Amino acid sequence: MDTITKVADDKSEALAARYGADALPPAGPWNETIGVMLGHRSVRSFLPTPVPEGTLETMIAAAQSASTSSNLQAWSVVVVSDPAKRRELARIAANQKHIEQCPLYMVFIADLSRLERIGTKHGSGTNGLPWTETFLVAAVDAALAAQNAVTAAESLGLSMVYIGAMRNDPQAVAKLLDLPPGAFGIFGLCIGYADPAAKAEVKPRLPQAAIVHRETYKQAGEAEHIARYDEVLGAFSRRQNMPTESWTARIKQRIAAITGREKMRPWLNALGFPLK
Amino acid sequence: MDTITKVADDKSEALAARYGADALPPAGPWNETIGVMLGHRSVRSFLPTPVPEGTLETMIAAAQSASTSSNLQAWSVVVVSDPAKRRELARIAANQKHIEQCPLYMVFIADLSRLERIGTKHGSGTNGLPWTETFLVAAVDAALAAQNAVTAAESLGLSMVYIGAMRNDPQAVAKLLDLPPGAFGIFGLCIGYADPAAKAEVKPRLPQAAIVHRETYKQAGEAEHIARYDEVLGAFSRRQNMPTESWTARIKQRIAAITGREKMRPWLNALGFPLK
Repeated sequence: MDTITKVADDKSEALAARYGADALPPAGPWNETIGVMLGHRSVRSFLPTPVPEGTLETMIAAAQSASTSSNLQAWSVVVVSDPAKRRELARIAANQKHIEQCPLYMVFIADLSRLERIGTKHGSGTNGLPWTETFLVAAVDAALAAQNAVTAAESLGLSMVYIGAMRNDPQAVAKLLDLPPGAFGIFGLCIGYADPAAKAEVKPRLPQAAIVHRETYKQAGEAEHIARYDEVLGAFSRRQNMPTESWTARIKQRIAAITGREKMRPWLNALGFPLK
Repeated sequence: MDTITKVADDKSEALAARYGADALPPAGPWNETIGVMLGHRSVRSFLPTPVPEGTLETMIAAAQSASTSSNLQAWSVVVVSDPAKRRELARIAANQKHIEQCPLYMVFIADLSRLERIGTKHGSGTNGLPWTETFLVAAVDAALAAQNAVTAAESLGLSMVYIGAMRNDPQAVAKLLDLPPGAFGIFGLCIGYADPAAKAEVKPRLPQAAIVHRETYKQAGEAEHIARYDEVLGAFSRRQNMPTESWTARIKQRIAAITGREKMRPWLNALGFPLK
């Protein structure tokens, strides 16, 4: 099999895993980098093998290479190795054991505090910071950076899972990591080699037609796209021996109420984000 | 020159461009995917050459492969080709001409409206949606997805720039794109082949030591890291024949006041995000 054929095969397989074999989008150009991203699956069980020397620095170099609004670089990372700290972070995250077990754990910080220190030091003012818009800039900066770090790690054969549950108690995270006001642990990231004993498959997503709109946002056809996706995700769940509840059923349950993070706004206020 | 040497050379060059030759982080493993990310530079001048057939679908497949909080997939994209619409979007963005000129322009949407339609249709309730936390989930989902789309495009030799200035007037963007309540154009994305006549270089970033903390957030040493970065960015600006104002000077000016987006919270409220 020559290289070109192999890449074409990988593309079809990758798209079938992501969308279901009957919903392949007409994707065009393809390469190894794209294959890495298509192959993403979240992994929650890691081997104890440490990540190779310099991996963190490579990931951070990729992360810092992402775009950042007006070059503000409004994010930071805290790498946590101390077992007691890991245990506490796992506790905050409803006892997700992989936070303790993964070889590399870091918390991404939406960080306006560095900018605030500059304005304060030079007496030039910080009236541009206490806004909802500025918080959003920091959150987006952190997310763009993190996703590059993830792609770097996955391109090296490592696996990962984001830990949104750092937001279960952002004040406890801030206290544990000694975050200054204006710094918010927006999510964590577990990195390591996947335990092959724990099967983790590529999870199918909504068909592209449900996500991509042309010229204006169209709601027509959405019900059919979602019905189709419910089938694809159902088949996936059966293959995984997971509960075969449909996506629709999960969404209904998930959005009917908020459980635990309804205080995000006062929490952020207390962390030094007035969100004006 | 054998392949291993070549990769090593690329790594050193890439890190030198990103951090300055005197501030190389001890980055470890390296490959082409990482090289693509390190080579990122924002481009604001594009050739009229269209992107190859299927490129959008490839980018979206990469975007949808990014992690999404609880598989909510709380984002969408509107691809805008109509010249009149492009003109209006450019006007909103302080007349950034590349919005009209780039072959492919899309607006990323932080989208809770799809979830809301599901809850409403099935009468199962949407009380989990009107929260600051839920808006944050949608914003992060959109950013993770977009960054994968960007890496896919750049891996194919395309160039890009994010357009944060879609947020200069989110209500005008929503009207133009017919966004339903609960959908917010969080940023735009220009894609195309870079005009080689317009030089665009890799922009240096803060040294890793300013961004990465161990165990706890440390402020010690920050002033020195920033002073060093001011020098690296100054040398970059001189090479580019740009104003050699330091990063510190730019930050001071940028954060002293907010100009135009101080209404983001009421704007988001009006767009169907109560941010409770």
